[in-house]
Amino acid sequence: MLEELKKEVLNANKELQTSNLVVLTWGNVSGRDPKSGLIVIKASGVEYGTMTEEDLVVVDPEGKIVEGDKHPSTDLETHLELYKNFKNVNGIVHTHSHFAVIWAQMKESIPCYGTTHVDYFPGPVPVTREMTKEEIEGEFEKNTGKVILETFQDIDPDVMRAVLVCNHGPFVWGKSASDALHNAIVLENVAKLDYFTKIGGDGSKLGVSQPLLKRHYDRKFGENAYYGQE
Amino acid sequence: MLEELKKEVLNANKELQTSNLVVLTWGNVSGRDPKSGLIVIKASGVEYGTMTEEDLVVVDPEGKIVEGDKHPSTDLETHLELYKNFKNVNGIVHTHSHFAVIWAQMKESIPCYGTTHVDYFPGPVPVTREMTKEEIEGEFEKNTGKVILETFQDIDPDVMRAVLVCNHGPFVWGKSASDALHNAIVLENVAKLDYFTKIGGDGSKLGVSQPLLKRHYDRKFGENAYYGQE
Amino acid sequence: MLEELKKEVLNANKELQTSNLVVLTWGNVSGRDPKSGLIVIKASGVEYGTMTEEDLVVVDPEGKIVEGDKHPSTDLETHLELYKNFKNVNGIVHTHSHFAVIWAQMKESIPCYGTTHVDYFPGPVPVTREMTKEEIEGEFEKNTGKVILETFQDIDPDVMRAVLVCNHGPFVWGKSASDALHNAIVLENVAKLDYFTKIGGDGSKLGVSQPLLKRHYDRKFGENAYYGQE
Amino acid sequence: MLEELKKEVLNANKELQTSNLVVLTWGNVSGRDPKSGLIVIKASGVEYGTMTEEDLVVVDPEGKIVEGDKHPSTDLETHLELYKNFKNVNGIVHTHSHFAVIWAQMKESIPCYGTTHVDYFPGPVPVTREMTKEEIEGEFEKNTGKVILETFQDIDPDVMRAVLVCNHGPFVWGKSASDALHNAIVLENVAKLDYFTKIGGDGSKLGVSQPLLKRHYDRKFGENAYYGQE
Repeated sequence: MLEELKKEVLNANKELQTSNLVVLTWGNVSGRDPKSGLIVIKASGVEYGTMTEEDLVVVDPEGKIVEGDKHPSTDLETHLELYKNFKNVNGIVHTHSHFAVIWAQMKESIPCYGTTHVDYFPGPVPVTREMTKEEIEGEFEKNTGKVILETFQDIDPDVMRAVLVCNHGPFVWGKSASDALHNAIVLENVAKLDYFTKIGGDGSKLGVSQPLLKRHYDRKFGENAYYGQE
Repeated sequence: MLEELKKEVLNANKELQTSNLVVLTWGNVSGRDPKSGLIVIKASGVEYGTMTEEDLVVVDPEGKIVEGDKHPSTDLETHLELYKNFKNVNGIVHTHSHFAVIWAQMKESIPCYGTTHVDYFPGPVPVTREMTKEEIEGEFEKNTGKVILETFQDIDPDVMRAVLVCNHGPFVWGKSASDALHNAIVLENVAKLDYFTKIGGDGSKLGVSQPLLKRHYDRKFGENAYYGQE
Repeated sequence: MLEELKKEVLNANKELQTSNLVVLTWGNVSGRDPKSGLIVIKASGVEYGTMTEEDLVVVDPEGKIVEGDKHPSTDLETHLELYKNFKNVNGIVHTHSHFAVIWAQMKESIPCYGTTHVDYFPGPVPVTREMTKEEIEGEFEKNTGKVILETFQDIDPDVMRAVLVCNHGPFVWGKSASDALHNAIVLENVAKLDYFTKIGGDGSKLGVSQPLLKRHYDRKFGENAYYGQE
Repeated sequence: MLEELKKEVLNANKELQTSNLVVLTWGNVSGRDPKSGLIVIKASGVEYGTMTEEDLVVVDPEGKIVEGDKHPSTDLETHLELYKNFKNVNGIVHTHSHFAVIWAQMKESIPCYGTTHVDYFPGPVPVTREMTKEEIEGEFEKNTGKVILETFQDIDPDVMRAVLVCNHGPFVWGKSASDALHNAIVLENVAKLDYFTKIGGDGSKLGVSQPLLKRHYDRKFGENAYYGQE
């Protein structure tokens, strides 16, 4: 079942490694089939190099396993919480990519310091608040999802397609697993550029103007976008 | 038409990737045919790995497409503005190479901290001023070119062959597309060396003397240059 | 003798290089056979690229050579001291991996700044005190082991599986040579993430909460661990 | 003539690139034949990838070309000055390797922050003073050598086998071209480790003790050295 989707999710998982977004087994990609609502996700703790479709699990929106012999990623419940609430999102990527994690560990949103950032993210990439003892000791992974949703109360997830979970690292999404992977690559690059700008620059001078932000984002994603072919 | 030039521009575009100057599709190279004045430039948003001559577009000095089925790079108008004003320049490279972008995001010119810098750039690599709301909301890419020209009012583009567009990133040029690529590789290295010198060093001590600057630049580019073979 | 163990130790040594944990010959892996207590360790100063089983030495717990024509690693006595005292440890890795060394040179333990750290290390990775003139001029490598043991007086080496030797670099261990290698890869990544968090972040805000530390460590290593398969 | 030496110098030059010590053509290796005193050096500005023995030049101690059709490296006179004065040195490497250059641009000697450093360099790696206008406008490359010699007035070049030329970058030497290459790889790693220790650490705490320095250096290079095989 869902052979096309599995292939895409498998490739996106493998590209986490070739794109240097993961070390060891620290990351996972899922994709959702818009028709059935079923979700394909990487199994927990499997190696990227030797990964095959046997290392994927198909679950329903509640997380019940529909196909596959392995345990799904421990982060499954976070993915499910996001899919449930972000209707247009059909792909999610979680990594421990270095500079995105560093911002998450600094507990700071990534500010808009340049056009590379605002080409994709029309505002600071938000960091969640720290989770409480109760949230951590309860349904931890589900609560991670809920804290992301709280962070997005006033943010449109179709426009801001990434978040930093405080102390932990990035979750990034998109219209598909491949699109989410693309955004995760962008995020890591932006996180690096903005990190070194922060520590090298004069804080009082940094940042892009609102018109520049709007212009660059709209070139790629606005109604009259004119970047790329057609 | 312009088969030689297309081949050179294609190679230079592909080398952006192998030289680690670009991530995803973030960069473009163009070359100008000195005889006809026609310009060959990368199409917008195409991948470097699979790029062929079909992904190049030939335009006249006003940007009218002379050959090619694709949209040219969105930065075309910036290239055209530079070609129009920099008579000896026949190749232009734009990238989001990391340390050049970081200086652009810090809104600082790259100071002359060492001989690697002054071997190629006999002075700080200038950063443009920020663009105004009007410039951004108007003909943005053309105005980007105009702000570069304003920055070069008193700088000779045959000698200083790079600029940082504030908040954005580098434009680098040369006598040909290959020469511009070479200079873009140099710029990124110099930007990295000078960045870490800035954040690690004692600011009051840094910088090269004027005689050292002149000596190193002249070894490579002066009238009596003696670096390399004849 | 010990063919299986030799193969594992050889592979782990070679992976030091492919995992970018070593430059030149700066590192070594050993493994202990739990039955006989014999230890297989890399010979001193041999190259990783051309290394074969001829470059391994088998020693008894006192360091007497049982098999092999070469001198064992100069760090042998440190390994022996740890094996003697850490009963469940059957693999040890020493490297000069960059960011672990940088913390050792800063003479600071690596603080718990994120979940990547506490997924594996449920507390700061400790740094030893500086060694005295007498310790250095005496049985230096053995005393290095003793200073590590002193550092672990109140720390359980089955839980905290790495140490930074002050001014020098990391020793990392595990249930086997492969497991120790895995932990050494983790340590270098954690050291990098925590280093850039330290220099970029606001010190008064940094760190994970105790419940988050416990939750993440227990997901992987607690009694009810639920990361990975089975 | 000198076929063995040419082969060694050619390989060492090519390894500058594979060891990531050079970008473009920014570096050169020479070797001296102890019997004849003749020196083999890379030609100026040639590419590493396609380099052959045709790109080497043989010169006598005064720099007169004995064999070869190309111009020798522009840094030849610096090499000659060192060979003339450092009797046991038979190989010299010059690069623009990043972190060594960064210390040279900071105009600071590289302090002894760890055992990786003192395994090879038993003291700070010295930086030269800035050169005067007269020295720069005169026989620049020869004077670069003279300023290095001035820096080594009270330092033994058989023990401290590297220097940073202020604002410029490292010259590294050894008993042969291969040995000098080895030391250049070490220097770049040490420069990186010590740089990040400096900017991340508490300056008042940093540094190795004299006994630790002596012990580590002597393990590798002392009379009773016991690192490596025989």
